[in-house]
Amino acid sequence: MPAMPGSTFGALFRVTNFGESHGPAIGCVIDGCPPGLPLAVDDIQPDLDRRRPGTSRHVTQRQEADAVEILSGVYEGQTTGTPICLLIRNTDARSKDYGNLLDTFRPGHADYSYWRKYGQRDPRGGGRSSARLTAPMVAAGAVAKKWLALAHGTRFVAWMSALGEIQIPFDDEAEIPRNAFFAPSAAVVPQLEAAMDALRKAGDSVGARISVLARGVPPGLGEPLFDKLDADIAHAMMGINAVKGVEIGDGFGVVAQRGSVHGDELTPQGFASNHAGGVLGGISSGQDLRVSIAIKPTSSIRLPKASIDRAGQPTVVETHGRHDPCVGIRAAPIAEAMLALVLMDHALRQRAQCADVALPLPPIAAQRP
Amino acid sequence: MPAMPGSTFGALFRVTNFGESHGPAIGCVIDGCPPGLPLAVDDIQPDLDRRRPGTSRHVTQRQEADAVEILSGVYEGQTTGTPICLLIRNTDARSKDYGNLLDTFRPGHADYSYWRKYGQRDPRGGGRSSARLTAPMVAAGAVAKKWLALAHGTRFVAWMSALGEIQIPFDDEAEIPRNAFFAPSAAVVPQLEAAMDALRKAGDSVGARISVLARGVPPGLGEPLFDKLDADIAHAMMGINAVKGVEIGDGFGVVAQRGSVHGDELTPQGFASNHAGGVLGGISSGQDLRVSIAIKPTSSIRLPKASIDRAGQPTVVETHGRHDPCVGIRAAPIAEAMLALVLMDHALRQRAQCADVALPLPPIAAQRP
Amino acid sequence: MPAMPGSTFGALFRVTNFGESHGPAIGCVIDGCPPGLPLAVDDIQPDLDRRRPGTSRHVTQRQEADAVEILSGVYEGQTTGTPICLLIRNTDARSKDYGNLLDTFRPGHADYSYWRKYGQRDPRGGGRSSARLTAPMVAAGAVAKKWLALAHGTRFVAWMSALGEIQIPFDDEAEIPRNAFFAPSAAVVPQLEAAMDALRKAGDSVGARISVLARGVPPGLGEPLFDKLDADIAHAMMGINAVKGVEIGDGFGVVAQRGSVHGDELTPQGFASNHAGGVLGGISSGQDLRVSIAIKPTSSIRLPKASIDRAGQPTVVETHGRHDPCVGIRAAPIAEAMLALVLMDHALRQRAQCADVALPLPPIAAQRP
Amino acid sequence: MPAMPGSTFGALFRVTNFGESHGPAIGCVIDGCPPGLPLAVDDIQPDLDRRRPGTSRHVTQRQEADAVEILSGVYEGQTTGTPICLLIRNTDARSKDYGNLLDTFRPGHADYSYWRKYGQRDPRGGGRSSARLTAPMVAAGAVAKKWLALAHGTRFVAWMSALGEIQIPFDDEAEIPRNAFFAPSAAVVPQLEAAMDALRKAGDSVGARISVLARGVPPGLGEPLFDKLDADIAHAMMGINAVKGVEIGDGFGVVAQRGSVHGDELTPQGFASNHAGGVLGGISSGQDLRVSIAIKPTSSIRLPKASIDRAGQPTVVETHGRHDPCVGIRAAPIAEAMLALVLMDHALRQRAQCADVALPLPPIAAQRP
Repeated sequence: MPAMPGSTFGALFRVTNFGESHGPAIGCVIDGCPPGLPLAVDDIQPDLDRRRPGTSRHVTQRQEADAVEILSGVYEGQTTGTPICLLIRNTDARSKDYGNLLDTFRPGHADYSYWRKYGQRDPRGGGRSSARLTAPMVAAGAVAKKWLALAHGTRFVAWMSALGEIQIPFDDEAEIPRNAFFAPSAAVVPQLEAAMDALRKAGDSVGARISVLARGVPPGLGEPLFDKLDADIAHAMMGINAVKGVEIGDGFGVVAQRGSVHGDELTPQGFASNHAGGVLGGISSGQDLRVSIAIKPTSSIRLPKASIDRAGQPTVVETHGRHDPCVGIRAAPIAEAMLALVLMDHALRQRAQCADVALPLPPIAAQRP
Repeated sequence: MPAMPGSTFGALFRVTNFGESHGPAIGCVIDGCPPGLPLAVDDIQPDLDRRRPGTSRHVTQRQEADAVEILSGVYEGQTTGTPICLLIRNTDARSKDYGNLLDTFRPGHADYSYWRKYGQRDPRGGGRSSARLTAPMVAAGAVAKKWLALAHGTRFVAWMSALGEIQIPFDDEAEIPRNAFFAPSAAVVPQLEAAMDALRKAGDSVGARISVLARGVPPGLGEPLFDKLDADIAHAMMGINAVKGVEIGDGFGVVAQRGSVHGDELTPQGFASNHAGGVLGGISSGQDLRVSIAIKPTSSIRLPKASIDRAGQPTVVETHGRHDPCVGIRAAPIAEAMLALVLMDHALRQRAQCADVALPLPPIAAQRP
Repeated sequence: MPAMPGSTFGALFRVTNFGESHGPAIGCVIDGCPPGLPLAVDDIQPDLDRRRPGTSRHVTQRQEADAVEILSGVYEGQTTGTPICLLIRNTDARSKDYGNLLDTFRPGHADYSYWRKYGQRDPRGGGRSSARLTAPMVAAGAVAKKWLALAHGTRFVAWMSALGEIQIPFDDEAEIPRNAFFAPSAAVVPQLEAAMDALRKAGDSVGARISVLARGVPPGLGEPLFDKLDADIAHAMMGINAVKGVEIGDGFGVVAQRGSVHGDELTPQGFASNHAGGVLGGISSGQDLRVSIAIKPTSSIRLPKASIDRAGQPTVVETHGRHDPCVGIRAAPIAEAMLALVLMDHALRQRAQCADVALPLPPIAAQRP
Repeated sequence: MPAMPGSTFGALFRVTNFGESHGPAIGCVIDGCPPGLPLAVDDIQPDLDRRRPGTSRHVTQRQEADAVEILSGVYEGQTTGTPICLLIRNTDARSKDYGNLLDTFRPGHADYSYWRKYGQRDPRGGGRSSARLTAPMVAAGAVAKKWLALAHGTRFVAWMSALGEIQIPFDDEAEIPRNAFFAPSAAVVPQLEAAMDALRKAGDSVGARISVLARGVPPGLGEPLFDKLDADIAHAMMGINAVKGVEIGDGFGVVAQRGSVHGDELTPQGFASNHAGGVLGGISSGQDLRVSIAIKPTSSIRLPKASIDRAGQPTVVETHGRHDPCVGIRAAPIAEAMLALVLMDHALRQRAQCADVALPLPPIAAQRP
């Protein structure tokens, strides 16, 4: 989002992420958290458990407890306002799975671009480019979620809205935690399972679409030029591994819309629709935030693909070992976390600049989509 | 992209934007530009002329020369390395066109959210939320383009790929500057003109899709966590007024793809395809950067829509005055500029950290899409 | 202070400075100012007038009105929360005074280091390195002062505490605006005038010591590691042209102190002393902030000094033209301004993170020094 | 220095510090380190050993090995360009020593200001305000030192130049590592020992003056407005615990100097003197960097002082437990480390912006002080 380049996210609620897939540990440091927030491992672990590998046959079989330790910033159960270091030990690293990747580049993978940037890379499990590094994002997001819930009543929910060609209807939000796919429809689950079983058998991978919703978003968040709320959301979402597209509200659907349809009418009872997805002119309107992302198919597949080696000679790559055939399956908690980090940061930025603003009209009620 | 919150864009090539639609002037300050770059008004004005209003009947009839002055940072025709202030006077402000908007909120417009954030707003022509503020973005982008062209041979081109329901084929890149729509197809222009004429008559507005391409992008740009090159592009693009969606490479098309298809194979002669759009793991691969954005229909339309006033009472809004019925028509130079700003910033960041990296294998040739 | 490198100061109240001594204009853009602050030229001009040249025979005879224009960010007399651009035209530029300096380097001046950094420089009046660039600092500081006065009752005063070997006693604060030296003692003024007259006659220059005080500083400002309030003050002060030393509270006097003396005792009636200068552990205590700075003698003097030219050959430099023989004389308003910018920024940072902190004990009264 | 607020130091070589004195661990994350730097624990531990407690009777008797672990960012002995997490376990925490401090405030200590800022604090050993947090600064500085030595031949040395009233002559640089005081004079050591023994017996504490020198500094480092090299050094130094004053070059000595004396003449053989301390106009000249800092006497003393408790009632505080009677004694490695972090950051910033600058004249030789 800005304000701090590289492995740090956020201008005021600042999360610095560190670690590699098969190093001793991964983690993050959160700086700028308000003091006095009750915080314990139990506030963080549940979201990590939703993201962690090995929970069904449809994801990588790597076994990681993803147990988080709080190393600093909390005293007697409350945040002190000083940096919170969250540490997650890697316990099921198997470097041998990946050893043969050092000299070649998986098509579609960061192997090549990391090597061109840094002149070298840690090949163990993808090193820094591994989706494993989303675990500290989820941990930090859990802290943001807790504060936002207490301060503003904000709530987050993400789900899979498409797996490959399969569109997933939003039948019932309560179904999301009940299946391995974060699918809001019980009826579609057998179809998803069959598709994944076939895919695994074929040694291939597939993309997915994830949708995220934030309810109870205070109006006024976002800075109108450059750091629009939706611009920072786009930054956050596109920064998640494998994401290739981001939409706010109606997204690419707006191309064919007329203004007479798109503009959400205001009424004393609330907005009459939510095409905008909760953001107007880069600033939250108080409506629900609606975001969708496109996640590409994993590049680590068993099927052979042409590539080159570090000497530039042609070769063929087949990737064995433990990999997710659809990284989208575990992406819902990650999308929630990143959205929470953006809102948390902007909530602090907003009160820094505009704490004194007082208006006669309360925020108008948000229309649920 | 970050590194500086609010109205400043970029971590090392830092552009601070100021001004309002109907104030005395708009402009920007560029800090961090490399010294010794030959720079004159003539390097900047052509891109401003491509963006400026009043150039055809399909855009707002406001008459602005958008003449840029260089107030600092250039001595005897070369940048000195100190801040470059670019100033554009507003010469055709007509505040009366907008006076009645102070007490009500246009549906789909930033009127409401600005008011909720700041407790007030400059209503003259949308004030700070006006698309007029993209002019300084274009001016700053022209400086970045010049440096990138000289240092890396990077070139940018953007075009309209859809207007409402009309898909625009990529027939001929040379057509883009020859029509009012930045359409890469002469054949489609009459259809576009007819659609816009009907729309104007109806008092409505419509969305558009813009595509951007950067050629000659050095590999290695981007920071893998959070500030991925594509994350910063998404931040830049979603920060443009009216943008609701961003895609890199195949974008939302990846949802239904298989990994066996998506992963671009590497050969000694170059990449065999470019589904990734030039970014792998958040780092440029050396292939062409391919980006698409969705632009919503303008909210300032003549057709009446329900709204409320500042006391929360119901009202009806019709917007008269001078407005673009499709802001997408002038968006191509803006998209080029923002992409150039991202690449410029990352080119400097890359040499800050990785100037010493030397590799035996030259970057493999980029496959043209 | 951080958060934005280069020509931008501040993390949340962000001031970007631009311009050169003899270019068309100098100025700054303030981003992040709270909305709703009443602001007009009259709030800014008085501080600029205190700093401007040509007001006595003891400073440079360049005649500049330093008239400030507000180009953006203010609507109907109130800040809107969007960037405030302040512009000051240069009206008495005489480039010929400096033309001969392009090929050689004044001993003690930035001529040499600028050239080594940028490979070139704008030699007209020192270009970017001129003390003229402190005018936009003063303008921005006036905005910060106004907000701090309204929000917290904070007040600033700076004075000259030494000119060369002459120590200036703090006899009467009311004297400061009554003489050309910002000296808090009427009795010492004749001595100061005689010293300056002799110096001018000799073609030499001299250093000075400036002290600054802020009263009514809210407690709790500052971030304990790295961005301590005093660290950010040191950054601000050492960033003023010609400053070579910064002290907080007793400053270098602490070296010889005992802890039993230095530690300011707390009583229900207030702190019993103020050796700390208002900062404990990098955080404001609520006491008066006490800061001192050392300003070096100007390097542009008539007396000849050995130097080299751009080819590395020995030469002799004598500097004629219009120069301050003691830049410290005009430094008091600059020091106030920079201190105000630091406090303003930290006041916003503080409420971003700690707005919810509520304590039973009101801040204890500050002991006046 | 900026660019990232709070517990992060540096714009491009970014060090995020975390931990508390008596928590499980302290440490830092370094982001932005160039890849390919050979790095092992042995590069870092020696500087930590110079700073660690318990090495003589004149410092706190807390026993900490300060053994550093590298958790990420290094692969096969080389930095990978990704974040380097350095962890130091706290092994000799004794929380009971400090338990009685929760309800009262030590005069001169951060107890009061932390409480006012955050509404609470971790009282164990001073929590976050403890000088123990300088250990991760030293660790990060060791990484910067290694890169600077390899890339530019830069070398650092710091020493104690005064302890209380005792001035320490610079007799012999080789003596510095040979005594417990970092004193460059063998002759003065008995006097220092006697003074410390008397002080300890009295239950009091004392201040000190530390000087730092960097040799082999490349010219051109520093950004002229706000982020002057000396401004960033002042920020770094004043950010060290207990520092109350910072001088560059002649520091406060410039107040009484004449310009004819102060300006260092340039000759083809080098600068003829170094009053400036290696910085001109905020940019390094290539001369040695000379910095001095004032360190206040510790506030944790056995002698009783008046204070108040959290209810505002008067009380008396005596501090027992393990404390440094002069924190200046261990400050030399800290000052070196912070100076190295500033130079490292600016070296990267310089090549980001000015990598293309080529000059015919090589940097002129630096005059040794």
